[in-house]
Amino acid sequence: MLRLRSLLLTNYNSLPFKHHHHQFHPIVSCSSSASVRSKMESKSYTTRSSNRLLFRQLFEKESSTYTYLLADASHPDKPALLVDPVDRTVDRDLSLVNDLGLKLVYSINTHVHADHVTGSGLIKTKVPGVKSIISKASKASADILVEAGDKIQFGDLYLEVRATPGHTVGCVTYVTGDGPDQPQPRMAFTGDAVLIRGCGRTDFQGGSSKQLYESVHSQIFTLPKDTFIYPAHDYKGFTVSTVGEEMLYNPRLTKDEETFKSIMENLKLSYPKMIDVAVPANMVCGLQDLESKAA
Amino acid sequence: MLRLRSLLLTNYNSLPFKHHHHQFHPIVSCSSSASVRSKMESKSYTTRSSNRLLFRQLFEKESSTYTYLLADASHPDKPALLVDPVDRTVDRDLSLVNDLGLKLVYSINTHVHADHVTGSGLIKTKVPGVKSIISKASKASADILVEAGDKIQFGDLYLEVRATPGHTVGCVTYVTGDGPDQPQPRMAFTGDAVLIRGCGRTDFQGGSSKQLYESVHSQIFTLPKDTFIYPAHDYKGFTVSTVGEEMLYNPRLTKDEETFKSIMENLKLSYPKMIDVAVPANMVCGLQDLESKAA
Repeated sequence: MLRLRSLLLTNYNSLPFKHHHHQFHPIVSCSSSASVRSKMESKSYTTRSSNRLLFRQLFEKESSTYTYLLADASHPDKPALLVDPVDRTVDRDLSLVNDLGLKLVYSINTHVHADHVTGSGLIKTKVPGVKSIISKASKASADILVEAGDKIQFGDLYLEVRATPGHTVGCVTYVTGDGPDQPQPRMAFTGDAVLIRGCGRTDFQGGSSKQLYESVHSQIFTLPKDTFIYPAHDYKGFTVSTVGEEMLYNPRLTKDEETFKSIMENLKLSYPKMIDVAVPANMVCGLQDLESKAA
Repeated sequence: MLRLRSLLLTNYNSLPFKHHHHQFHPIVSCSSSASVRSKMESKSYTTRSSNRLLFRQLFEKESSTYTYLLADASHPDKPALLVDPVDRTVDRDLSLVNDLGLKLVYSINTHVHADHVTGSGLIKTKVPGVKSIISKASKASADILVEAGDKIQFGDLYLEVRATPGHTVGCVTYVTGDGPDQPQPRMAFTGDAVLIRGCGRTDFQGGSSKQLYESVHSQIFTLPKDTFIYPAHDYKGFTVSTVGEEMLYNPRLTKDEETFKSIMENLKLSYPKMIDVAVPANMVCGLQDLESKAA
């Protein structure tokens, strides 16, 4: 199992970060709050970084899951990554990657999902060289295990890893980089930690409403208010929100901690129908079939 | 019935368009090809206009319809419009408009839909002052009837109207403005003229495969290649494409005209289940219930 920091060291050394190396330390875990930048400061940036990011949001209807495709379109290789791919829609996603002339390098999960099987395993069989990524805290196996403060580099862009446990013990949020050469506004891929006007349940897989509340308030609501929130799911047809919007209108997370815990303890949700298939498969990043075949 | 040009005259006079009045003539129908701008030229723009546009894509599951919310967030009134709202999701859409502090001014349709009832009528009963907009060629009734070359102004932003008949006789495509003060890349709301890797059927409501082919090639594929395509529907979980992408990969519209017509004539699609309810309702922009009650 490779650790991300050593992989990134190589990438970092080859990149032309002349003007802002003071804020770009991919091989060092840094505190998330240190990278929070004032909204006013970010307003003066030009579009260079926005043109650089190629971004697509994709939807899987059965589980209402969003998959995200990000690529550095200005880099000669057009390196790309997928966040939370679903097994059923892998062919669609790879066809798009191909049409856009991208080189897929990472297949990333925000957490061990209970409602669908990740596409990571299938992608690895179809595109040799793609590395699966998940958090070390998830206890799942993957090619690369990440921790808070790690940076996942693709071309001259990167995602920062923030630990946001609570829906599951290993949930992380991936946030686009901070700085004038990175997309503005920033974008947070929150998994099930923050959903648009909602949040993930906390009653299985090491979930904890207390932990979720603290995660969101310390790791997500401290981002600039114009940061886009891209969740792993939506059931009402919303595609995106912002930190500022959820801080004002999220019906659960705007409450005080005790009220939030009470809400989460009284949701009376049914047992997830996919959990007994999805969790074991996702603990090996969707490689279950291959492993059983090899056995 | 008001005509758009006279309405826009008032707006135009109050706006500070000092540096580029040569390309901004909202009261004059202008040829669409005149406003096509080279990709190279557009690359030099700053984000001022991108920050100005508040944009949300919303999905209605039953009919797989996309509704779009656009607003000028930099204008004191935050004037907003909805493109292709669906009756079932009006409360969601208006709640979002309210949360974002926007003033909804227009509810716009790309055409007389056959698969869902527009939300325009319901919106008008819930938000007095909102004006419904549809093309004059649709023969539907609405507060404002638009034609090719018209501009729909909201704050300092506008949508340009392009005639794209073929799916229905009255289909139009709304394109964000051209120029450094307007969103870059441009965005085309194509209705059912161009879908992502597809297009709308041409076998009812005055549809014509010949006309659709000509519309798309003359009015949409002549836009800058990085123009985003936001369709009225998607059935595979795609959210957006670009002109360049569809020019390369659309399995129907990349063919020559004769092959395209042959494909469209052999789709063997079933009769749309909602058409007998939706079309009469949409011919009056969703005001059917109100009118029957008033009768």
